[in-house]
Amino acid sequence: MIEIIPIKGLPIIKEGDDLGELICRASEAQGTPIRDGDIIVVTHVVVSRAEGNIVNLDEVEPSPFARTIAEEFNRDPALVEVVLREAKSIIRMGDGHIIAETRHGFICANAGVDRSNVPGERNVAPLPVDPDLSARRIRKRIMELTGREVAVIISDTHGRALRSGEINVAIGVAGINPIKDRRGEKDLFGYTLKVKRTAIADELSSAAELVIGQADEGIPAAIIRGYRYERSEDATAKQLIRPKERSLFI
Amino acid sequence: MIEIIPIKGLPIIKEGDDLGELICRASEAQGTPIRDGDIIVVTHVVVSRAEGNIVNLDEVEPSPFARTIAEEFNRDPALVEVVLREAKSIIRMGDGHIIAETRHGFICANAGVDRSNVPGERNVAPLPVDPDLSARRIRKRIMELTGREVAVIISDTHGRALRSGEINVAIGVAGINPIKDRRGEKDLFGYTLKVKRTAIADELSSAAELVIGQADEGIPAAIIRGYRYERSEDATAKQLIRPKERSLFI
Repeated sequence: MIEIIPIKGLPIIKEGDDLGELICRASEAQGTPIRDGDIIVVTHVVVSRAEGNIVNLDEVEPSPFARTIAEEFNRDPALVEVVLREAKSIIRMGDGHIIAETRHGFICANAGVDRSNVPGERNVAPLPVDPDLSARRIRKRIMELTGREVAVIISDTHGRALRSGEINVAIGVAGINPIKDRRGEKDLFGYTLKVKRTAIADELSSAAELVIGQADEGIPAAIIRGYRYERSEDATAKQLIRPKERSLFI
Repeated sequence: MIEIIPIKGLPIIKEGDDLGELICRASEAQGTPIRDGDIIVVTHVVVSRAEGNIVNLDEVEPSPFARTIAEEFNRDPALVEVVLREAKSIIRMGDGHIIAETRHGFICANAGVDRSNVPGERNVAPLPVDPDLSARRIRKRIMELTGREVAVIISDTHGRALRSGEINVAIGVAGINPIKDRRGEKDLFGYTLKVKRTAIADELSSAAELVIGQADEGIPAAIIRGYRYERSEDATAKQLIRPKERSLFI
């Protein structure tokens, strides 16, 4: 059996907060202290907040291009400017959406810049600068404090090309191989699986969202317990990016 | 807390089997009888097997087009024929992949035709003819036998346009609204969420896959317990399909 345990009682995260320590303390306080093999899933917005990676739109000077786009799409020019600064390419603009490729290589709406769950009416949260590094830092801290072997995943909410609604996926990982490569394994009837590379870190992020996604309760992190994952010290969420030129669908 | 409970001890499913009854019995036998509010996730291959929706490739006469494609991609002409029969449009062919739109409207590799976990070397499993109906039948049976209110999801493994690896998504639902519409809700800081429609049924399918995806153990179903979902009697997994003409990315 696998358990998905919401980490409740975390304070409002602000710049400089030690997320690893706060997670350990809150887990302990609610009677579910971190155990060996736990996977801790943390939403990117609190990571950006702890890292001080918050942008006040009033302090942003929109470029002429950002102003043009903003007018075209009826958006805030400063927000468009932040999105453009986070992007290394634009995949599509239309219907009020800017789908962009982030500097990390993720393709998502608004280049991952998030407006919700950020304190201050004019503040937005870009993705963490290096989400794998953020995950590694949180993991290191949790392991120092608890002596437990854990994995950490930083998650984000993504739309999909051909399905409605959003799901949560991994944008940073530490201590866990984000892909489970099952090619060569045999199925129930001895048939060798030919194409089966499961995006475990994305499935774990989606599972965690089932307890995290309660805007009113403000739960930014969860423990997934009982899932046996493949450990990896040099894992990166970049393994989850399919190069544009190898896209299966477009 | 949410629990993901593998349903172990199910027999090898064959045509005519009463999946609902077998799931109730196996859950009972392993000490986790079905409870009110449980979500039962079942992989589509066992549903197709129970429904007798299995095709023997030796009995398939490939069309001239299927032969051409098969030669081009070095594939089995009979398999290509089955894929074409399941498809209402082809999205892309290349690199040994046929990405097709199924008659239901799902866009996936090989139009969802599955070769693994099907007994018989020359047998393949297309998707269930009407996965929502399959889900409704299983749900009705479980509710009859247990007197419990449950939801049922039929899941399938899908690749993604722009991410590596596969995840599990919902292709049939019963008793649960597959999308949680949170537009209008307020976040932690009173900011009204503007775009937030969570594809709950897909996240639940991915969560279930964490216990299901063990080819060697052959676990085709799981119970997700403790997630409060929105009940719906007329739900359909078609709500999860984004119309091609409204694709965000292509």
